[in-house]
Amino acid sequence: MDWSDKFAERASLMRRSPIRELLKVGNRPGVVSFAGGLPAAELFPVAEVEAATQRVLREHGKRALQYGETEGLGELRDWVARSCGARRENVLITTGAQQGLDLLGRVLLHPGDRVIVENPTYLAALSAWRPCGAEFLSAPTDSNGLKLETLPALFAQKPKLLYTQPNFQNPSGITLAAERRQPLVELAQKHTVPIIEDNPYGELWYDSPPLKSLFELEGNPNGGVVYHGTFSKTLAPALRVGWVIAAETLIDKLALAKQSADLQSSTFNQYIALEIARSGLLETHVPKLRTAYRERRDAMLVALEKHFPKSATWTKPAGGLFVWVTLPADTNALELLPRAVEQNVTFVPGEDFHADHSGQNTMRLNFSNATVEQIHCGIERLAKVLR
Amino acid sequence: MDWSDKFAERASLMRRSPIRELLKVGNRPGVVSFAGGLPAAELFPVAEVEAATQRVLREHGKRALQYGETEGLGELRDWVARSCGARRENVLITTGAQQGLDLLGRVLLHPGDRVIVENPTYLAALSAWRPCGAEFLSAPTDSNGLKLETLPALFAQKPKLLYTQPNFQNPSGITLAAERRQPLVELAQKHTVPIIEDNPYGELWYDSPPLKSLFELEGNPNGGVVYHGTFSKTLAPALRVGWVIAAETLIDKLALAKQSADLQSSTFNQYIALEIARSGLLETHVPKLRTAYRERRDAMLVALEKHFPKSATWTKPAGGLFVWVTLPADTNALELLPRAVEQNVTFVPGEDFHADHSGQNTMRLNFSNATVEQIHCGIERLAKVLR
Repeated sequence: MDWSDKFAERASLMRRSPIRELLKVGNRPGVVSFAGGLPAAELFPVAEVEAATQRVLREHGKRALQYGETEGLGELRDWVARSCGARRENVLITTGAQQGLDLLGRVLLHPGDRVIVENPTYLAALSAWRPCGAEFLSAPTDSNGLKLETLPALFAQKPKLLYTQPNFQNPSGITLAAERRQPLVELAQKHTVPIIEDNPYGELWYDSPPLKSLFELEGNPNGGVVYHGTFSKTLAPALRVGWVIAAETLIDKLALAKQSADLQSSTFNQYIALEIARSGLLETHVPKLRTAYRERRDAMLVALEKHFPKSATWTKPAGGLFVWVTLPADTNALELLPRAVEQNVTFVPGEDFHADHSGQNTMRLNFSNATVEQIHCGIERLAKVLR
Repeated sequence: MDWSDKFAERASLMRRSPIRELLKVGNRPGVVSFAGGLPAAELFPVAEVEAATQRVLREHGKRALQYGETEGLGELRDWVARSCGARRENVLITTGAQQGLDLLGRVLLHPGDRVIVENPTYLAALSAWRPCGAEFLSAPTDSNGLKLETLPALFAQKPKLLYTQPNFQNPSGITLAAERRQPLVELAQKHTVPIIEDNPYGELWYDSPPLKSLFELEGNPNGGVVYHGTFSKTLAPALRVGWVIAAETLIDKLALAKQSADLQSSTFNQYIALEIARSGLLETHVPKLRTAYRERRDAMLVALEKHFPKSATWTKPAGGLFVWVTLPADTNALELLPRAVEQNVTFVPGEDFHADHSGQNTMRLNFSNATVEQIHCGIERLAKVLR
């Protein structure tokens, strides 16, 4: 069978993510990987997951292994809802936060619809929404996040959505400043444009607790802010348990889309996540993650200062997993990558995070999945490649 | 925010599945539910899942809780591939078999593309592909499955795909006869139309082992048959571990679509499924399921014979989870449902399983999730409603 003439047009809009491909190289022994966005596996609460699984199977074995409701386990939806003053009906459990983005695209985006995204932005949002026929409007950012003064011109183009990661953004590590948050919410309300607030990293803060979310600032669960959260960074990505908090009308449509997409997320994993959330483990575990990742972030910033050429600049993230490096304008990070791999160090070239195809001179460095020693050694190797 | 004017056109093609809604009513105490397609929870190998989870976490804890490759855990892909003479590259692990159908639609179906489906057919295939803009060509079936003589006229309409559940079909319980299998494969090959072979129930046979699959009959993993399998019926649906076996070119595109859909299926659950598959548990567990479900099927057939009016007919499934009832032509099963619920018994009206909107006089009865006593009592109640 020649499959090449069978593919639908939208399949040509699906692109291979360089990050996921690099995951494969990064597993080679001796390679320091600043690619990927992996949490530190050595910090996973393995024994606690084992204990929680045992309790779940002994107390809810039959229900935990059975089909459940598409919307998610009721008690877990309640737990999520309570965290932000919403109701169970405002919550949909998703197969990782990524699925939330995918379902939103299916339910909201018509071919030709415009979406305001940060420049740079999370590339898997672009790849989820491109096949829906979305067109992206890149909003400039600075070290305080979205530059609000650039937005009116973009809103004038009648976008369908605005997408933002306000805390420790992937890829840039940048946080939307407090004084920009309320005005952003109001601006979007004025233009009746929903805000998609994606917050996978909010709990991973290293300097001070996160600012109020856009969802909290709007103060209306049935309003225009759609909030995405996940256990992937605070507990374990392998469980694939994330959530969307949004207006009931929207949750209802997203649930319909989810029904066709995968019927439901794993009942078993939802029970485990709930058991762990209720046990209070996260209150002691997440601070440990903060301590470990803070040390790694600091190590990376010190190593960059020590080894990188003065012509490069980089962000100083207050949380999350990434430092974002800007090289001189004539440097092409993608071309550097094969040479970096030769030197046993990997990173993600920044271009694909730009919906406007700029950013050839940028790179994303992940600091959560390497030891302090590896970080020093890897940054030194990378600096050698740059010179 | 008024969300109603925000939805994309395709969202209007997403419909609520009556089965999933009925799941909620079916949980009421005292209700005998023949709705849903739930395996018997009391037969889940809870202790074995606990033991397997413990081994997985102790031996592979860090990897089992970490992100993994979109295509799935290598060893699990190998296990699936070995079961049918394919290679790892021919296998994609999916979040339940449902996700395989969804991804296929995204990658292959352009608005207006035609898909040949059995009449009746699995309704979640319809609901997955409708939002892609698919149009369905309903192929007549009899007690031996697809009526081959009706297919040339449908192939003449240049369909993109043919979708079939050849073993103990959901909803009808019917199996495609041995003598129709090779001719079907050849007919599809002649018209270069891929066959989507969905086989969630194949292992649940009660009279004799399943016939050769269409995939095996074609004998070429890179050919035109796309095979869907799952652990949902043999192990536990809550794990959400299914798979697609298909040509490498297609698997590659499906993996791209999956990357945007949910990044990957749960690494944790894939390890657990692999551990159980390797342990040999399924070789003793699945025969137990066969014994229990055979008894329930037999009980339902006896009860139908005893209580149902002579004007009704029903299938005698050789496996799977469902008996399919045809009532007199002027009976509307959907209108009977509220009265059945009053009598504390539920079923699924058959209409939604028909892409051509026929079948108002049909109903699907699930026998796997009720005891023999409940089956007798439930069928008696239902017979009362029919009279």
